[in-house]
Amino acid sequence: MASPYVGAAVASAVMAGRTWTIVGVGGVGGYYGSRLALAGHRVRWVARSDVAELRDGGLRVESPDGDAHLADLEVYRSGDPVPPSDVVVLCTKALDGAAAAAALVPAVGPESIVVVLQNGLGVEAPVAAAFPGHAVLGAMSFICAQKAGPAHVRHLDYSKVTVGAWTADGGAAGVTDEVAAVCSDLAGSGVPVEALDDLAVGRWRKLVWNVPFNGLSVVLDADTAEMVGDPSCRGLVRSLMDEVIAGARACGHDLGPELVDSMIASTERMVPYAPSMKLDHDAGRPMELDVIYDRPIAAAAEVGCPMPATEVLLAQLRFLEHRRRTGG
Amino acid sequence: MASPYVGAAVASAVMAGRTWTIVGVGGVGGYYGSRLALAGHRVRWVARSDVAELRDGGLRVESPDGDAHLADLEVYRSGDPVPPSDVVVLCTKALDGAAAAAALVPAVGPESIVVVLQNGLGVEAPVAAAFPGHAVLGAMSFICAQKAGPAHVRHLDYSKVTVGAWTADGGAAGVTDEVAAVCSDLAGSGVPVEALDDLAVGRWRKLVWNVPFNGLSVVLDADTAEMVGDPSCRGLVRSLMDEVIAGARACGHDLGPELVDSMIASTERMVPYAPSMKLDHDAGRPMELDVIYDRPIAAAAEVGCPMPATEVLLAQLRFLEHRRRTGG
Repeated sequence: MASPYVGAAVASAVMAGRTWTIVGVGGVGGYYGSRLALAGHRVRWVARSDVAELRDGGLRVESPDGDAHLADLEVYRSGDPVPPSDVVVLCTKALDGAAAAAALVPAVGPESIVVVLQNGLGVEAPVAAAFPGHAVLGAMSFICAQKAGPAHVRHLDYSKVTVGAWTADGGAAGVTDEVAAVCSDLAGSGVPVEALDDLAVGRWRKLVWNVPFNGLSVVLDADTAEMVGDPSCRGLVRSLMDEVIAGARACGHDLGPELVDSMIASTERMVPYAPSMKLDHDAGRPMELDVIYDRPIAAAAEVGCPMPATEVLLAQLRFLEHRRRTGG
Repeated sequence: MASPYVGAAVASAVMAGRTWTIVGVGGVGGYYGSRLALAGHRVRWVARSDVAELRDGGLRVESPDGDAHLADLEVYRSGDPVPPSDVVVLCTKALDGAAAAAALVPAVGPESIVVVLQNGLGVEAPVAAAFPGHAVLGAMSFICAQKAGPAHVRHLDYSKVTVGAWTADGGAAGVTDEVAAVCSDLAGSGVPVEALDDLAVGRWRKLVWNVPFNGLSVVLDADTAEMVGDPSCRGLVRSLMDEVIAGARACGHDLGPELVDSMIASTERMVPYAPSMKLDHDAGRPMELDVIYDRPIAAAAEVGCPMPATEVLLAQLRFLEHRRRTGG
């Protein structure tokens, strides 16, 4: 950590505006929470692990934007009551919607905006069911960041976030006041942010990247540079992207014609990167297969659009996960 | 090698009938050539490697049928002239049809029946082009056998061979005299054998097994027992089999409705086995991607039948082969 040290004293001096609770202090939660805290927001942290480390030593964030060390954090153990914040962001892995909603209960106050910052499809519904009457937003991060160790986050590249309002029928909500407020705080914290008119379009757009790169990185044991650098694999990435775009279209969401080329190009410009699913698999953690693969396949199938290439990848990932779980 | 020793003296005593030349002394050529020799046929061996070992020490064949050691072999170095035999069998990997035909030239006499005992689609055509007027047969082995070392073959399970006559238009030739003769010699040597009315049907049937199990064994680093034992992977195997069967049907070859179930069941009964493509990949040898994947995909595409799941597998295999070749 050779770059600027920004301590708690600086942040406290400008503490103002909306309060935030970050639920899940991994690469994503740690990075965005630190940006908000450094910009002067009061941030409460809800952690399932490393609670003592976070309380005693604070949070280290390495980033090309400048390294930071946040001390004197308000850290809550997951499940313990948390004072209500204006915004509560769910930053855990999208593995179990019911468990995620339950984890939010002690943190969500009567007026809290609830933001589900997770991958995949259908992640907001169990949260919305648990908090009727609340504004529930969905958010996606386009970031290369990971937990480097206890209370230690490493941000490698990119940091954009998109935010949109969830609706029960999946239709476009437009940019609501809550979306505008959340985007304003993030933008004011130096995070590139985009407000989504239509959350479902944003979710499917992100799947266009996640479906090929997350799964293939695991099956082929490859990083993004290897995948886009190889002609066969790049062709396969394109086929999978085309299939997701066709699935989205069948579900009523037109993602536009330029998406594949622009995503391939931005991946080529990216630092060689192991997607989060590969990090999860390599570390023996469960993969987000349900929300990234099963649900898009099921949603497209329901409107008569098969996704055979995506199904191959999912079956391979299920095999690998099952073998790892059974010690093979 | 604890089981019966059967030496050259026994074989010589009953030497009779048609002469055979085996081109390619790997697991397949070594096993079938040894059965023919032990049954009393004069067998000439054409080898690209291990020529000195074969000449000096003979060929060791380990098999559940009984181990054997064949001494005093007639071994020819690939490219050297070979006295003409009644039957010449090409048992090399199906990697380069033109090179295979060239390798056969010194071994094929004016009256020789030429048998192409290889995997995949389209392997007979370059051989037939090189030997106009000859009877060209296609043959497939259903065998778990591999080279265990120089002049040393290990047979693990199964040994059936199917044989059919090649025709320029791909139509059924019926069981020709040459097919009957070749089958008779093999059956008389203790090899389970089936004469094919229609070679193309046989080729596609074998692809129904090879397309899923060869490729997935490489991509998933798994043996047959792991693949059929896992529900996700077994489902994927079935999907790939269904796709090959649909491709065959589009090309005019009806493989029958029971094939998938019977192949899954026979694979479940099989000794856990690493298919030849996995052995090739693990040993740094090229894989038979062209004849097992590209050609069926192209043949089906030509008649308007896409094979998207098979294409995923091929792209993954090309990626892995390219990475290995470039030292990644």
